[in-house]
Order: sequence, then structure tokens, then C-alpha cells
Amino acid sequence: MESTNGTTIILMSGDMDKVMAAFNIAVGAAAMGKETVMFFTFWGIKAIQKGNLTGRSLFARMMGLLNRGGINRIGPSQFNFWGMGRWMFKQMMKSHKIISLDDLRKTALELGVKLLPCQMSMEVMEIRKEDLIEGAGEPCGVATMLELSDRSKQTLFI
Amino acid sequence: MESTNGTTIILMSGDMDKVMAAFNIAVGAAAMGKETVMFFTFWGIKAIQKGNLTGRSLFARMMGLLNRGGINRIGPSQFNFWGMGRWMFKQMMKSHKIISLDDLRKTALELGVKLLPCQMSMEVMEIRKEDLIEGAGEPCGVATMLELSDRSKQTLFI
Amino acid sequence: MESTNGTTIILMSGDMDKVMAAFNIAVGAAAMGKETVMFFTFWGIKAIQKGNLTGRSLFARMMGLLNRGGINRIGPSQFNFWGMGRWMFKQMMKSHKIISLDDLRKTALELGVKLLPCQMSMEVMEIRKEDLIEGAGEPCGVATMLELSDRSKQTLFI
Repeated sequence: MESTNGTTIILMSGDMDKVMAAFNIAVGAAAMGKETVMFFTFWGIKAIQKGNLTGRSLFARMMGLLNRGGINRIGPSQFNFWGMGRWMFKQMMKSHKIISLDDLRKTALELGVKLLPCQMSMEVMEIRKEDLIEGAGEPCGVATMLELSDRSKQTLFI
Repeated sequence: MESTNGTTIILMSGDMDKVMAAFNIAVGAAAMGKETVMFFTFWGIKAIQKGNLTGRSLFARMMGLLNRGGINRIGPSQFNFWGMGRWMFKQMMKSHKIISLDDLRKTALELGVKLLPCQMSMEVMEIRKEDLIEGAGEPCGVATMLELSDRSKQTLFI
Repeated sequence: MESTNGTTIILMSGDMDKVMAAFNIAVGAAAMGKETVMFFTFWGIKAIQKGNLTGRSLFARMMGLLNRGGINRIGPSQFNFWGMGRWMFKQMMKSHKIISLDDLRKTALELGVKLLPCQMSMEVMEIRKEDLIEGAGEPCGVATMLELSDRSKQTLFI
């Protein structure tokens, strides 16, 4: 019988604080032995991009510019202040010995969290499979996401 | 016995990208045969308004002005740039043959997705039943929403 | 046997409208007899802070300044306009006889809703137990939150 005790996280936000919350919950769930899936859509795709420039249309290039540098370059949803927010957040996290977003993502992968990109978002933003980090799963659609979610005790939209 | 396999979406956001994500998930769920309900609250009500001016208080008129034009006039949560964001989003969606928000909503209705407005939000924003699109259900409260949600495998707050 | 019919709300937002939505759902759930838990993380902690200044680091002091005044001083996610939004929201709520955030929180506590602060957020933002309102529960981590959520019919991330 299939597990029905999983955790599904739909990450639509590309804000640093929300990305961090999403990975923290995912790592916690996986550590408890729950089958854990993260589904990355729209701005959330930033969290599994390498950070290179992608796409050729005006929009895709704009998105690429904004995402340049990958997960270490994203800022929080509040107090961004032209990069100050990110810097402050990092200082604060460092001084409190909080794990970095990059390491948190590695831990998630090590614990078997599935990182699935949303196919439609990839098409619209002109992101190719090779623009994503190693370990990212196959792009999939809403149906796959919902099937995984049906086997989960909680599905969070972040 | 009642279905316990439904999908409930609470849409509080009025941002174009989030409204689109909500309808995409709803349409996907309904297409899978899941009993699907969308509950529209606060800014989310925009997504089922006709787009006319409503209410007489200062606040209600401000809300009305901002919502003028209905679902085709709302902008994304990021990159709005005084309307540029919306225009770009639409171009991008068009060039990638992504269904428009308007058509997505029609599809949702055709697939039997229930679109329920939050009663309290309607009162506070002075929106009348006739200000909502045809097909919108009866205004209801938190209790009704939670009862529907109790029969769902996933409840998303967007 | 333990209840499996609860409601879990993870509140990460500190925006007035979202805090209000969260408490409204919590109060509705508790009134229906559901075991209801609210888990406050990041900006959401504002909703159970007394509103005094906390912490000594630059970041903690900034957070403290922004949170000064507690739950009555927070503004909505849109139309804040340097405090105008909050004032308008309050006027509108008053004229429609909507319960204030402060009273809503009291009702939640009276109905037995558990208000749990996220331990990591408290550490990072240098918030002490005594900075939280009376009635707030013991700080806890992701594991505790997920265990409570596993017994819930719906877990909302707000």
C-alpha cells in the first residue's frame, strides 16, 4: 500500500524568507520519515535554478537577469532595501548559526525530498532542464502534483 | 457516503499570478474528477467580480476603482510596473498559447468548480450579489468553507 | 484515540489582512469543535507579541521598532499608504461592526485555540517568552507543528 502520510509543498514564491520556510518544513518532514515533495512553480522556480541566464524573449531575459546568481541572490519579501535586507538576513542567520539556504537545499536532497519543477512555468519562463540544479526531478503538471498531494497529510501553498 | 477526495482553494490574493495559479489547480483537480471548491475572500473577490463600481463609502469606492474592469485588469504580484507587468504577462502567455484568466475561469465553471464568495468580505467591501459574475455561488462563511474543506484531500490558502 | 479532525494554521505573514484571515478561520474552526492550532513563524510572530522593543542586535532592534505597538499597529498587505490603510481598514471594520483583531485573538484563546510560537524565529529575532502575550504556548519547532498538522483535516500556510 502506498504511503498516505506525506507532505507536499507548492512553492510559488521566490522570496528568500518564504523559500527558507518551505525548505525548513520539507527538511523537517523528511527527517520524520514522511514522503516529501516540493513542487516549484512561477517565481518559486528560482529556488532550484542554477542562476544562469535563460531564454531569449524579452520576458525570459528579464526573469533571467532577476534570477542571476541562483538561490544565494534572492531577497526576503520584506525589508529588501536594494539588497540590504538579504545581507542583514544573512548576517543574522550566520550569527545565530542558522543553516544557509544552499545547505538547506542540499540537506533536503540528501533526505530524499523530491524537487519537482512545474512544466508550464518552465515553458512560459523559457527555462530548460539544464538550467536547473542537479537533483531536480522531471518537470510535471498539476495532475502529478495533485496525485502526490492526495497521499499527503498536509499540502502547503507557499 | 460523501466524497472525501475533494480540493478546496481559499483565494485571498487578488494578484494575477496567484489568481491564475488558483484557477489552474482548480481546473486540474476538477478534470481529475475531484469535487472542487474555490472560496474567494478579501482581495480574492476581484477574481469573480464583474468589474463595475460598487459601494458608496470611501473605502468601497476605492476598492471599486481598483477593481474596475474585472479579471482582465488585475496585475501580477511582482513586476507590475504600472501596468507593464500585466501587459508583458499577457504577451508572454499569448505567445506560449497559455489560456487566458477569463477562459480559465469559464473552464472551471464548465467543469463544475464551485465559486463561493466570502460573505463577510462582501459586506465589508460593499459588494452585492449582482456585482459578481454569473455562475458565482451563494455567499457563505467560514463554517461552510471548513465543512467543504473537511471533505477535501488538500486545502490551499493562496 | 486522538482527534484527526483538527485545523492547523501556519501564520508566516505579519500583514493585518492575513493575520485577520488566519484568526477568523481559527475562531470558526474552534467554534465548530475542531482542535485548532496556530503556529506563528517569521513576521507572523508579530501577531502574538506584546509590542515592546526586544533584542539588542541591529536586526532585532529594527524588527522591534517595526513591531512596536503589537497587533493594533500592523497594516494590511495592500493599500498601507503610510498608515492610512490601517486607519481605513479599522474605520471600515468598525462601521461594519467587524470584531477587532485584538478581540478576535481574545476569542480564539477563549475557544481554546493553541497559539504556538516558532522557536527558531524567536531565536533569530531575539524575542523572549516574556515578550509574547499571555496565553501564548511554549515555543516549538517544525516537528511539533507537523505532528499537530498530521491530526488535522486542513493545514493552511498563510
